[in-house]
Amino acid sequence: MRQTFDESTDRTFGPRHVPLIRRAMAEQGLDGFLVPHEDEHQNEYLPAANDRLAWATGFTGSAGAAVILKDRAAVFVDGRYTLQVRDQVDTGVFEIRDLVEGGVPAFLETSTARGQRIGYDPRLHSPDALAKLRAAAEKAGALLTPVNDNPVDRAWGGARPAQPAAPVVPHPLAYAGEESAAKRAHLGADLAARGAEAAVLTAPASIAWLFNVRGGDVIRSPLPLAQAILSKDGSARLFLDPVKVTPDLPAWLGNQVQVETPDDLPAALAELKGAKVLVDPAQSSAWYFDTLAAAGAEVIRAEDPCALPRACKNPVEIEGSRQAHIRDGAAVARFLHWLATDGQTNPPDEIEAVSKLEGFREATGALKDLSFDTIAGAASNGAIVHYRPTTRLNKRTEAGSLLLVDSGAQYLDGTTDITRTVAIGEPSPEMRERFTLVLIGHLALAAIRFPAGTTGSALDILARAALWNRGLDYDHGTGHGVGSYLGVHEGPQRISKAPNTVALKPGMILSNEPGYYKEGAYGIRIENLQVVTPAEVIAGGERPMLGFETLTLAPIDRRLIVAEMLPPELRAQLDAYHARVLAAVGPLVESDIKGWLQEACAPL
Amino acid sequence: MRQTFDESTDRTFGPRHVPLIRRAMAEQGLDGFLVPHEDEHQNEYLPAANDRLAWATGFTGSAGAAVILKDRAAVFVDGRYTLQVRDQVDTGVFEIRDLVEGGVPAFLETSTARGQRIGYDPRLHSPDALAKLRAAAEKAGALLTPVNDNPVDRAWGGARPAQPAAPVVPHPLAYAGEESAAKRAHLGADLAARGAEAAVLTAPASIAWLFNVRGGDVIRSPLPLAQAILSKDGSARLFLDPVKVTPDLPAWLGNQVQVETPDDLPAALAELKGAKVLVDPAQSSAWYFDTLAAAGAEVIRAEDPCALPRACKNPVEIEGSRQAHIRDGAAVARFLHWLATDGQTNPPDEIEAVSKLEGFREATGALKDLSFDTIAGAASNGAIVHYRPTTRLNKRTEAGSLLLVDSGAQYLDGTTDITRTVAIGEPSPEMRERFTLVLIGHLALAAIRFPAGTTGSALDILARAALWNRGLDYDHGTGHGVGSYLGVHEGPQRISKAPNTVALKPGMILSNEPGYYKEGAYGIRIENLQVVTPAEVIAGGERPMLGFETLTLAPIDRRLIVAEMLPPELRAQLDAYHARVLAAVGPLVESDIKGWLQEACAPL
Repeated sequence: MRQTFDESTDRTFGPRHVPLIRRAMAEQGLDGFLVPHEDEHQNEYLPAANDRLAWATGFTGSAGAAVILKDRAAVFVDGRYTLQVRDQVDTGVFEIRDLVEGGVPAFLETSTARGQRIGYDPRLHSPDALAKLRAAAEKAGALLTPVNDNPVDRAWGGARPAQPAAPVVPHPLAYAGEESAAKRAHLGADLAARGAEAAVLTAPASIAWLFNVRGGDVIRSPLPLAQAILSKDGSARLFLDPVKVTPDLPAWLGNQVQVETPDDLPAALAELKGAKVLVDPAQSSAWYFDTLAAAGAEVIRAEDPCALPRACKNPVEIEGSRQAHIRDGAAVARFLHWLATDGQTNPPDEIEAVSKLEGFREATGALKDLSFDTIAGAASNGAIVHYRPTTRLNKRTEAGSLLLVDSGAQYLDGTTDITRTVAIGEPSPEMRERFTLVLIGHLALAAIRFPAGTTGSALDILARAALWNRGLDYDHGTGHGVGSYLGVHEGPQRISKAPNTVALKPGMILSNEPGYYKEGAYGIRIENLQVVTPAEVIAGGERPMLGFETLTLAPIDRRLIVAEMLPPELRAQLDAYHARVLAAVGPLVESDIKGWLQEACAPL
Repeated sequence: MRQTFDESTDRTFGPRHVPLIRRAMAEQGLDGFLVPHEDEHQNEYLPAANDRLAWATGFTGSAGAAVILKDRAAVFVDGRYTLQVRDQVDTGVFEIRDLVEGGVPAFLETSTARGQRIGYDPRLHSPDALAKLRAAAEKAGALLTPVNDNPVDRAWGGARPAQPAAPVVPHPLAYAGEESAAKRAHLGADLAARGAEAAVLTAPASIAWLFNVRGGDVIRSPLPLAQAILSKDGSARLFLDPVKVTPDLPAWLGNQVQVETPDDLPAALAELKGAKVLVDPAQSSAWYFDTLAAAGAEVIRAEDPCALPRACKNPVEIEGSRQAHIRDGAAVARFLHWLATDGQTNPPDEIEAVSKLEGFREATGALKDLSFDTIAGAASNGAIVHYRPTTRLNKRTEAGSLLLVDSGAQYLDGTTDITRTVAIGEPSPEMRERFTLVLIGHLALAAIRFPAGTTGSALDILARAALWNRGLDYDHGTGHGVGSYLGVHEGPQRISKAPNTVALKPGMILSNEPGYYKEGAYGIRIENLQVVTPAEVIAGGERPMLGFETLTLAPIDRRLIVAEMLPPELRAQLDAYHARVLAAVGPLVESDIKGWLQEACAPL
C-alpha cells in the first residue's frame, strides 16, 4: 500500500514543540516568529522535512499559518478547516483564528508591542504577503526581522526528517512531446523580447516541465525540488542536490544546461548585477527579491514564464492523458464493479475501499504513484470536503448511504483525478434529487462551447445554476488545472466563483467537479477531467468556439439519477458519455466486469 | 418632438477646426494637444459646450480621443465605432487609430519627439489615464504640460455653445425615499470610520442622489453639473452656478448644506490642508488630485462613496420604478400595436417609428425626457449596435425584415430602457431561430437565483450559452446599471464578460439585453430591466438566494419565437411574464389595443 491511514501529528505537538521553538527564539533575541504553511518552494503538498506548521501546531491542512509569541500563540486556518483544526491543535497553546478575515496581519497589529522583534524566514514568504505583514507589525511599532537560522528548524533538530533526495530522471519525449531545448529557446526569445536577461525559476513543476525531467521529492507528485536560471539565449543553470543527479541526466540535459549545487545559487544570483531579471512573486519567496536587489539586479515581477505553456498541453501530452485515462478507467471500473457487487452485500469501510482501489490501480503495472491520498467518505464523512480516512476516523458504509470516492493516479503518460459517488443499498429520494442537480451542472459545464478569451470564472455558474435555483450550493471551486505527470493541482487556469483573468486555451486540462454536501449526512461530488479543445466553427454558426473533451472514463451511478429531471439534451449527452466509456474501457476488463459495465453504461 | 434627426457634425469639422486649434496651440508654445472625449465631469453624454472631441474631429461616438500635433493628428476609437469614424471624420486630417490596442500612449511614444511640449487640460483626464500618457510621452523624450486655457476652447471661441444652466430643483421624498440628511449622516459616519475628514464629489449623479435634487445640464438625464465636499459630520458644501439655484432650493437643502459658486471650489479644496480626503480617481480628474496635493491634503483614492448606495434602490425608488414601467409599458404597447397593425400594412421608416413612440410616451403626461435617443434600426441598420436614425441614414422597413427599437423614458418615479425586435411581414426561419436563441438567454438570466457575493460577470454566460453552443455571440455587454430618474447607464454593477468584482445587491436595477447581429442584414435584441430581489430561502433549499424581479412590461413578438426550441420551464416563464404584462398594462390601454394585447400575451 502506498497510502497510509496513520495520523502524522497529534494534539501534543503544540505543548511539546512550542516551548522548544520559544527557547530557540530567545537564543536569537526574538519576541515572536512567523510560521507559514508554505515551504521554500511554495509547494502545496510538503515534504515532511518542510512541514513546519504541522510540527509546531499539529495542524495538517493544506493552507494556514501560525504566529508564536513569547507568551501566546495563534494558528490561522480558513473556513474549510475550522473543524479539523480544533481536532488537531491544543487550544491551550494556540488560539484559533481565521486566516482570511483579518488573518495574520490583524493579529500582528493588535498583539505585538512597540520595540518587539518578530522573526521570519525570508525563504518561506512571498514578497507581497510579507509586505502586508510588515505594514501590520509596523502599525504596532514592532519590527519584522529576517532570520537565516529558522528557530523552528533549530527546535526540531535531530528529529527533523532529512530533506528528500529522490533521483531526478529524464521524462522521455514520447511523454513530454517537445524537446527541452525548443521550450528553452522559445521562452528565452520571449525574455529577450521583454528586455530581460534571465528568469529565475523556483516552482518545481516549472523546472520539471522545462527540462523534461521528473523527480520524487514531494509525495504524490513527481516533482524535483530545485531552482534554475533561464537565460534569454535558451541556456540555463540548474541548481540540484548532487545526490539527485542520475547517471543519464547530464547527457539528457545537454550542453546548454549547466548542473550546479543549490549552494551555488546565491553567487549565481549575484552575477545578475545590472541585468533585468524576471521573477514571479507568486512562486518565489522574498529571499529571491532581497538577494537580487542586494546584487543590484533589476527585478521584473511577472508570472512564471513556464506557467502558461505548461498548462497548454501539446498533442503528445493530450494523447498520453487519453491513454492514462483509459487505463485508469479500467481500474476504476473494476473498483465500481466491486462496490456494486461485494460492496452491496458486504459493505466495506473507507480504508477497505481505498485499499481495493489502490490495488486495482497497482495492477495496471503502470502506476507511478497516487496523485493524492484517496478521499473515501462514507455517509457523514462524505460531507467533509477535505476528509481523508485514517484509522481513527474510518467509517463503515451502510445500506441507504452514499460513498464518495475522490482519487487519482500518476502515470508516465498522464495524471488522473476522478470522483464518483456511489449508492450503498437504496438511496433516499433526496439523495437522488441532489445527485441529479449536481449531475446537471457537471454535464452543462462539460458541453459548453465558448469563444476565445473566456475565463473559468465565466463558466463556473454552469455547474451551479441548477443547485442555486433550488437554494443549494457547494463551498469549493468547480475546477482546477491538472499537470501532465505533474501536480494534480496546477495553475494558472481554474473554474471558480473567484474572479480569474486567465483565458482558457486549447490543451488546458481542468477538473469539472461540482458537489453537494449535507453536513452530518452525506456528500456528493461528480468529477471528470476535461481538456480544452481547439476553436472550430460550429455547423451553421459564425464564430469558432472552444469546447471540452472529457478525458475521464468511468460510469456515473445510474441508481442516483432521476432521469425525468434531466433535459433531453443532457440525457443524450450522458448516454453518449456512457457509450464512450463502454467502448474504451470495456475491452480492458474481465468478462464479468464487462457485463456489469454494459448495464452501468446502458442508455438511461 | 424631443429627439432630432440632424447630424451635429460633418466631415468638414476637422479641416475647418484643426487649423484654429493649431494656431491656439502655437500661441501657447505647444507642439501638441490631447483631446479626450470626457469632459470636466467625466460624463458619458456631454453638454454641447463640452463635446470638444466632436467639434475638433467630427466624431460623435460615446468614447474616443484625439491627439493634435503640429503636422499630423490622430483620432482614436474602439471596435464599435470603426465604421462611424470613417463616415464622420476627414481622414486627410486625422489618421484613424484603435483606442484599445496601443491607443493614445503608443501613439505618443512613437509620434512625439524629444523636447516637444504636449499640452493637456488637467480637468479632463483621470489621474491614472494621465499617468500612462505621461509615461509614454517621456519614453519619447516629450513633456506633457498642463494647460489651464484649453486651446480647443480658445479656438472654438464665440461659436462654442454656452455652458448649460438648467434649474436645479428638489427631488421630492415621495420619489427619493430617503432624506438627504440621513444619506449624508450615514456616508459621513463611514468617512469618519475610515479616518477621512471629507470626500470630494464630482459625479453629477452622485450629487443629484446625495442632495435629492435634479437638474438638466446633460441631455436625456436630469443631471446637475456641480461639485460638492461632504464632511464626516454630514454637512456639505455644494458648488453650483447661482443661475441654477431655484427659489425653493436653499430651504430644501437645509442648514447643513452651504451653497457656493464653482469659483469658490479651489479655495475650499485648499482649506483641506492636512486633512485626509477621499477622491475617486475614476470620477474625478487629475486637477482635483493635483490641487489637493498642492494644498497639502492627504488623498485617499477610493470609490465615490455615493456609488454603491445610489445603485441599491430603496423601497420607495423600487416601487416608483414599478409604476414608471407600468406607465411606460402602456406607451410601448400602443406603439407595438401600431407596428402590428398600421405598421404591417404601411411599413414606417425609422424616424416615423421613433416619432410615434415618442408621441405615445409624451401622451402619458408624465414624460420628463427620453432616457436616450431612441435607436430604431430597420433591417441592416439594426445590426449596427450604436445606430441612431438620422435624416441621412433613415431607412424604411420592408416586409420580411426586422425592426429593432431600443428606447427609454425619464419619469419622476423612474428611468426606463427597453428593446423590442419586431417582425415586419413574415420573418425568415433563420430570424426566428436566432431570435429564439436570444430569448433563451434573456429568460435564463431573468430566472436565475444566486447567492450573495455573486457578480454580474458570473451571470453573463447565462445570456450567451445558447448562442455560443450554436457558434454565435454578440459584441456588447449583457446588462448595465440604471438610475432612479438619473442616468440610464449607472455603475458600479454590470453584467458582462469583462471581470467585475462588484457583488450584485438587493435593489440594484440592471438591464438584461442579449442580442444577435447579422451584418448587412438585421439585428435582434431583447431588453428588459430587472431589479435584484432580497435573499430568501427557496422552499426545500438550504441557503437564501437573491434573484431578479423583471420591471419592464411589454410583449415579446410571438411571431419570432420557435416554441419547440424553448425548454418547458422557459416556456412557462415566458407565458407567466406575458400574463403579468397583460394584467398590469391591459387596464391602461384602449379596448382595441387591449384586444391585440390579449393575443400578444396569450400562452405560447
